[in-house]
Amino acid sequence: MTMRRAGAAGRLASYLPVLDWGRRYDRRAFLSDGLAAAIVTIMLIPQSLAYAMLAGLPPVVGLYASILPLVAYALFGTSSTLAVGPVAVVSLMTATAAEAVAAPGSAEYVTAALILALLSGLILLVMGAFRLGFIANLLSHPVISGFIAASGLLIAASQLQHILGVRAGGHTLLEVGRALARGLPETNLPTLVVGVAATGFLFWSRTGLGPALRRLGLSSGAAALLARTGPVVAIAISILAVVGFGLEARGVAVVGEVPQGLPALSLPPLDLSLWTALLPAAFLISIIGFAESVSVAQTLAAKRRQSIRPDQELIGLGAANLAAAFSGGYPVTGGFARSIVNFDAGAETPAAGAYTAAGIALASLFLTPLLFHLPIAVLAATIIVAVLSLVDLGALRRTWAFSRFDFAAMAGTILVTLGFGVEPGIVTGVALSVLLHLWRTSRPHVAVVGQIPGTQHFRNVLRHDVVCAPEVLSLRIDESLYFANARAIEDIVQRAVAERPQVRHVVLDCAAVNGIDASALESLELIMHRLGDAGVKLHFSEVKGPVMDRLARSDFLRHLTGRVFLSHHEALGELAPETTRRADLAARPDIDAARTFPERASRRPG
Amino acid sequence: MTMRRAGAAGRLASYLPVLDWGRRYDRRAFLSDGLAAAIVTIMLIPQSLAYAMLAGLPPVVGLYASILPLVAYALFGTSSTLAVGPVAVVSLMTATAAEAVAAPGSAEYVTAALILALLSGLILLVMGAFRLGFIANLLSHPVISGFIAASGLLIAASQLQHILGVRAGGHTLLEVGRALARGLPETNLPTLVVGVAATGFLFWSRTGLGPALRRLGLSSGAAALLARTGPVVAIAISILAVVGFGLEARGVAVVGEVPQGLPALSLPPLDLSLWTALLPAAFLISIIGFAESVSVAQTLAAKRRQSIRPDQELIGLGAANLAAAFSGGYPVTGGFARSIVNFDAGAETPAAGAYTAAGIALASLFLTPLLFHLPIAVLAATIIVAVLSLVDLGALRRTWAFSRFDFAAMAGTILVTLGFGVEPGIVTGVALSVLLHLWRTSRPHVAVVGQIPGTQHFRNVLRHDVVCAPEVLSLRIDESLYFANARAIEDIVQRAVAERPQVRHVVLDCAAVNGIDASALESLELIMHRLGDAGVKLHFSEVKGPVMDRLARSDFLRHLTGRVFLSHHEALGELAPETTRRADLAARPDIDAARTFPERASRRPG
Repeated sequence: MTMRRAGAAGRLASYLPVLDWGRRYDRRAFLSDGLAAAIVTIMLIPQSLAYAMLAGLPPVVGLYASILPLVAYALFGTSSTLAVGPVAVVSLMTATAAEAVAAPGSAEYVTAALILALLSGLILLVMGAFRLGFIANLLSHPVISGFIAASGLLIAASQLQHILGVRAGGHTLLEVGRALARGLPETNLPTLVVGVAATGFLFWSRTGLGPALRRLGLSSGAAALLARTGPVVAIAISILAVVGFGLEARGVAVVGEVPQGLPALSLPPLDLSLWTALLPAAFLISIIGFAESVSVAQTLAAKRRQSIRPDQELIGLGAANLAAAFSGGYPVTGGFARSIVNFDAGAETPAAGAYTAAGIALASLFLTPLLFHLPIAVLAATIIVAVLSLVDLGALRRTWAFSRFDFAAMAGTILVTLGFGVEPGIVTGVALSVLLHLWRTSRPHVAVVGQIPGTQHFRNVLRHDVVCAPEVLSLRIDESLYFANARAIEDIVQRAVAERPQVRHVVLDCAAVNGIDASALESLELIMHRLGDAGVKLHFSEVKGPVMDRLARSDFLRHLTGRVFLSHHEALGELAPETTRRADLAARPDIDAARTFPERASRRPG
Repeated sequence: MTMRRAGAAGRLASYLPVLDWGRRYDRRAFLSDGLAAAIVTIMLIPQSLAYAMLAGLPPVVGLYASILPLVAYALFGTSSTLAVGPVAVVSLMTATAAEAVAAPGSAEYVTAALILALLSGLILLVMGAFRLGFIANLLSHPVISGFIAASGLLIAASQLQHILGVRAGGHTLLEVGRALARGLPETNLPTLVVGVAATGFLFWSRTGLGPALRRLGLSSGAAALLARTGPVVAIAISILAVVGFGLEARGVAVVGEVPQGLPALSLPPLDLSLWTALLPAAFLISIIGFAESVSVAQTLAAKRRQSIRPDQELIGLGAANLAAAFSGGYPVTGGFARSIVNFDAGAETPAAGAYTAAGIALASLFLTPLLFHLPIAVLAATIIVAVLSLVDLGALRRTWAFSRFDFAAMAGTILVTLGFGVEPGIVTGVALSVLLHLWRTSRPHVAVVGQIPGTQHFRNVLRHDVVCAPEVLSLRIDESLYFANARAIEDIVQRAVAERPQVRHVVLDCAAVNGIDASALESLELIMHRLGDAGVKLHFSEVKGPVMDRLARSDFLRHLTGRVFLSHHEALGELAPETTRRADLAARPDIDAARTFPERASRRPG
């Protein structure tokens, strides 16, 4: 979908993508979207009830959060398959934030959830207006996957109370575990039976229901889609069981009365002190929700060679959260599992989301009386099965093998999330990613390089047989120069020159220097003056265009004791003509050694 | 000073540098150190009194902070010229932190300053033990210089009250300004006369006293050193004036009784809640103190072709702060102006600091009665003149010219420091530096490159006349790949391929890619799969050794749809042999165009 069109209409369409795809909308797209919406609706009814419960809210709030927000996203979003609504991690974060300012079950608690949606919507819109989508990139892949795995474990643990039929709250794994241990003796057996049966059935339905349906003669596509109805089947059967066996009298907790009808439009109260208290949590909810949603949307768009626009996604999700705030919902974002179902079922445009909203609206109008006898243990089972599928502990092993730094960020995020809760977890993850990145680049790799005889190439003297001129020290800097490594470069150059008293010229090969900031400029000036005091000139080679442009804006080049050479070979040709001529004319006995570079790379640093 | 020696003695000497330089200590060094110490002592007496006042502490605390801490640094520090003791910025930060937990003038306030010194000492020692000196690098050059300039202005403004003889507190420029405006009508005229005269004399003594002394026949070296005694002269004359003209009776505030004698050794109280409250401030004090001190020490060491060891500096400054905490002082660090005087006066070893400590001890024993009539306005004048010399507003202009990003970090630091105080200022500065760095690298420069005919060089098609093969897209990535830019690279490659339907191979030239983290690996896999779906193969060229080593630890290379080539020329030779052969054999009509690279660089991105 390209959105560029001339004039104001084009600009408007870029902010309101529906104007673009809407004018191409036809009967075929309607049928595809309608089918996908029907399937997602069936999936969303139990999920919305369950996630509202996870957020500590009345079940109906989950339904409300699945109506207007979906319509808002359909108008402003750019993904044709993202299914917006309540999701597990954001629900848990909502519970954590709301519990900090209000008692669960109170009217203030519901208000806090509304304010979180409102603030989150405003934050996302502001980020969209200023094109700040890049902030979500601060969540590195290991941090996100660690955070989602740890949240999944926390959520699953927190739902065990409903399977056991006891009360056990807590924000950390330890708190939840202790509360469960205390509650264990009061386990309600009928609830446990219902809960375990539902969990077992739902796990089986993920992998076994599809093949079973195929054996019954269904096409594999239809079987795969029908297999997604597992949660609805579990709900229907469990309601019948509760009514048939009179399980409520035996202590099985049920959802109870769910208000019938559509949400009323209303404005969350303007309570500044409450807004201020909830702002940090709303910010984290926005960032996590956006990052999760964008990665799902991008993955699905790529499969169809479409693309999404992350900055417009901020607007779409912002509008969805504002809609949630004005219609009795709570924070929403794009869900992983539902979006995949929507994609598989053939959704073609964001209209599928609007049709899903209509489906949920119908359910709110007509189906809520049926939910009275729905056991809470079955909702808990739905949540447990959904979140455990997000836990990918194999990623820990793969990340460990690839990079200790990334592993440290991932493990830190997981441990802090489990041990201290979701908000400290995500903050720690981001801080670790950034600090480890700064630390990694704070010790730049600098190689002494020499000429490969018979070529114009220069390579690390430690890895290759190369020719060096004794009076010229060639240093290749393998990092952009900025504040975190500027002082390290001073040290490295100073030490390298101190070890070679015969050196008269230092040439810094800057082919891998992609940027130089003011701190690094200061360090380069210091290096130049120190070398100058020792009678050594400082030269540069292979400086990139943008870096050269930048240096030209300061006094540095005017005071430079040496010169800036286009290529490193040219520099050596000027500064050590004798050595270079011999190296140029030499046979190339070790060109094969040079070619073995990738193999030898595994032994020595580069 | 190289510290490597065999065995345990060498290791011990590396932690206790005095064992190294101490055994080479001789009469000549003693005389040099002694002379320097005498001059620094004369300078330090008024400074220590003034900075203690700035910190809201009794003047004697400044003297105490200038005795044992200097001895501790002499034992553990690695700089032969750093003059440790009270400094302006750290004194202001101490005042801000202590005022948050205790009333100025109370015993609790003095205790808070002791705890700050203790915590700061412990933090520095822990950082030293774990070799975390790199944390100070997070303070980029523009942030430090902006912070010091803004603190200087804040400090100068806060001292105006003593020049006017009124009371006017405040932590921000606005607060101080308002308080001064309120106090203005009660200005004490004699105090104003003394204060303005002292300020004028001190400003003149910085530039005019040296030449005046030379005209009196002194050698230029002696004149320069004697010119540093300006503050002591101002103090002596003002004391005489107060006594002679009976100025105290006319409302001129004086220092009053300063306890005579040496500090008693004591332990700050173990009050955990107070410790916790002061910990963040102590951390900021440690970092700022360390960064300031190391940059002074490094600059001075470089002038004599010596070096300092930043991690051992952490130990030295940590020991100094612990010593301050145990002997009635407050946080100390290496001071800029005093260190330069120490250096100029010829200090050769850290022993000079110990002799300065002896000098201050003698002053505490015998000189304090003389200080009774010292006008506070003169101390304020000392501070104003000292801090205004740290304000370098020209740096703003230079930084603006060099880089808007660095300027933004600098200006943000200055504005927040002036508007909200020192702690928010420094936190904002660090956050801005890091965020702007991440933002800058989050939009990597990627160039489509082609072969310069007749050479094996590849250059940006926008800057040079080059040859490209239509079926091969050569992209040079000018940035290390990591979480902040991984998604941007996905977009860039996807868009570049979408614009060129005839492309069958994408070759990523990684000569400037210095690292690849787990997030970037994930993105490369995504890129490979998306290209694969479109029938396009993904290749790499010029991958650096360390990056190759890293990739080899994942599955990525095994699943790679294309190949990894040693050089970009080799890649093109394999993938587009016809085009490459023609380009290789071509005359080199535009080699001069290629050489104009630096000039053309100023017009187009690189």
